[in-house]
Amino acid sequence: MQGTVMSGMRPTGKLHIGHLSVLRNWVMLQETYRCFFAIVDWHALTTSFDETEIIQENIRDMFLDWLSVGLDPAKSAVFVQSHVKEHAELHLLLSMVTPVSWLERCPTYKEQIQELGKEGKDISTYGFLGYPLLMAADILVYKADTVPVGKDQLPHLELCREIARRFNYLFNVSLFPEPQALLSKVPVIPGIDGRKMSKSYNNYISLTDSTEEIRDKTRMMITDPARIKKTDPGHPEVCTVFVYHGMFNQEETDDVEIRCRRGEIGCVACKARLAQRLDQLLQPIRDKRNELMNHPGQIHDMLKEGAEKARQVASRTLEEVREAMRI
Amino acid sequence: MQGTVMSGMRPTGKLHIGHLSVLRNWVMLQETYRCFFAIVDWHALTTSFDETEIIQENIRDMFLDWLSVGLDPAKSAVFVQSHVKEHAELHLLLSMVTPVSWLERCPTYKEQIQELGKEGKDISTYGFLGYPLLMAADILVYKADTVPVGKDQLPHLELCREIARRFNYLFNVSLFPEPQALLSKVPVIPGIDGRKMSKSYNNYISLTDSTEEIRDKTRMMITDPARIKKTDPGHPEVCTVFVYHGMFNQEETDDVEIRCRRGEIGCVACKARLAQRLDQLLQPIRDKRNELMNHPGQIHDMLKEGAEKARQVASRTLEEVREAMRI
Ligand code: SF4
Ligand code: SF4
Repeated sequence: MQGTVMSGMRPTGKLHIGHLSVLRNWVMLQETYRCFFAIVDWHALTTSFDETEIIQENIRDMFLDWLSVGLDPAKSAVFVQSHVKEHAELHLLLSMVTPVSWLERCPTYKEQIQELGKEGKDISTYGFLGYPLLMAADILVYKADTVPVGKDQLPHLELCREIARRFNYLFNVSLFPEPQALLSKVPVIPGIDGRKMSKSYNNYISLTDSTEEIRDKTRMMITDPARIKKTDPGHPEVCTVFVYHGMFNQEETDDVEIRCRRGEIGCVACKARLAQRLDQLLQPIRDKRNELMNHPGQIHDMLKEGAEKARQVASRTLEEVREAMRI
Repeated sequence: MQGTVMSGMRPTGKLHIGHLSVLRNWVMLQETYRCFFAIVDWHALTTSFDETEIIQENIRDMFLDWLSVGLDPAKSAVFVQSHVKEHAELHLLLSMVTPVSWLERCPTYKEQIQELGKEGKDISTYGFLGYPLLMAADILVYKADTVPVGKDQLPHLELCREIARRFNYLFNVSLFPEPQALLSKVPVIPGIDGRKMSKSYNNYISLTDSTEEIRDKTRMMITDPARIKKTDPGHPEVCTVFVYHGMFNQEETDDVEIRCRRGEIGCVACKARLAQRLDQLLQPIRDKRNELMNHPGQIHDMLKEGAEKARQVASRTLEEVREAMRI
């Protein structure tokens, strides 16, 4: 094993094809790293404490998606954050050595308060202020040294390192590693309408979409508006369908581009090719998901075992932390 | 049982006679209330995360003092806060619904930061900001409705009520009571030198002081400086010995006052009377403490059982909280 990886996602429910590259990266990592993958439900509360109705359903959906894509509970610890209370304890203990100013200067802090404030939502809570600290606890409780993150999370990871360093310094130990970012180039995939892919726009293809849904959604995609007849030369660079070919159908992308520019392929046929390709891609994920859903009791057990696996490591870390702090 | 009481003290180590009235009040309360008494070690970290060397010793000393004075593990849950992880979990969950501004406006917050700042100590941490929230979690995790506090703690208790109210409102439950203060008139006892009783001045009589130590310390007490000979009329109102008579020797106080004013008793004799009385008072406490110390293994067991007793109630509350928040 090369090291320890920790990463997580908020329980937003069913995932879409935009999440595939992150998940595929995780699936690869579990071959060479000791991995901890958490559905971070406590984090969901930092911005949505008042919208928790569907959190349990979201957790279940996300867990099924993760396993369907290939996360393997035999290789990794795959679990729900709130099932491992050690995250809360470490969060509390680290809070004692973390200056408020470090949290206040987090670039996302004031930004997000303002942004959500515009929507009439007040998230200026103690919990929201402490969100990067909770994230640090999530990582450090497993002594993870490697954290796959997007660029936007880099300041939070830097804060995590600062906290680790401060703890080690104050208590004269080398308990926590300073976790490094594993920057993953996450391609931004537009929604089928060309806008940002988003639940509220309902413009995405989810991992669980059926063959028909994929076909229908692909049909609705925005293409080159200058093309009237299928023999008109097309401009793939302005076409969402082409973006998808480039991401999910790389083998045929060059061919599609040439034939589009020459007016040798119609948009209907081009979309049908994409739909077929996406369907091929999602077929095994759907199959795996259906298989899992036939054994609902097993899902519950797997979540329990995942938490147990995580807790074994977390509780050892907490013992060391308490010893270092002499508490 | 009239209700549920929760109270705690930071593990400052051996207690002194200034603590007796608070403890006696607790001992009385356990006859009519379901009581939870915690040594709040996590709170000690909010202001002293860097001075934890003796925290374990302090916990043990305080626990022994509590039992020696009459707290009864058979009647009350007597335990160490950090042994009951539910305090940390509830603290985290409540943090999601607690506005930062509520914590920032706590009267003690900026005051204490400045005060300790003068001593060169920086406590402007996230944990210190959240200290009243942790206190709220300590109380609410047992659904305590009654909290014996001093006047200085009233704003914190008001905040606790606000948090309870907000939680109940947001999640449309009546889960938490709004705990009321049981204001105890805690008489302020001066140190033997007339200054504030304080560890750093080393001017107090501790509950574990021997007959000799009590006699020596009483001898060092400040009396009326205008009295030269023992027949000079005295002024008990300026005499620390007299304050002590008033507090610990009420039966003889009037007599002492009259004879002092008339010059009928010398300060040496007056102090001897006080010393004798204090010794009588502390004798049973010392005896109980020695008895307990003869069975060190038992102390460990009692702490474990106390935490178990507390945890039973706390974990039920957390189940309800999680259900209310649907997490
Ligand atoms: S042929 Fe394909 S790439 Fe070209 S505009 Fe139509 S859908 Fe887009
Ligand atoms: S006689 Fe007692 S009360 Fe009077 S001054 Fe002396 S010590 Fe104080």
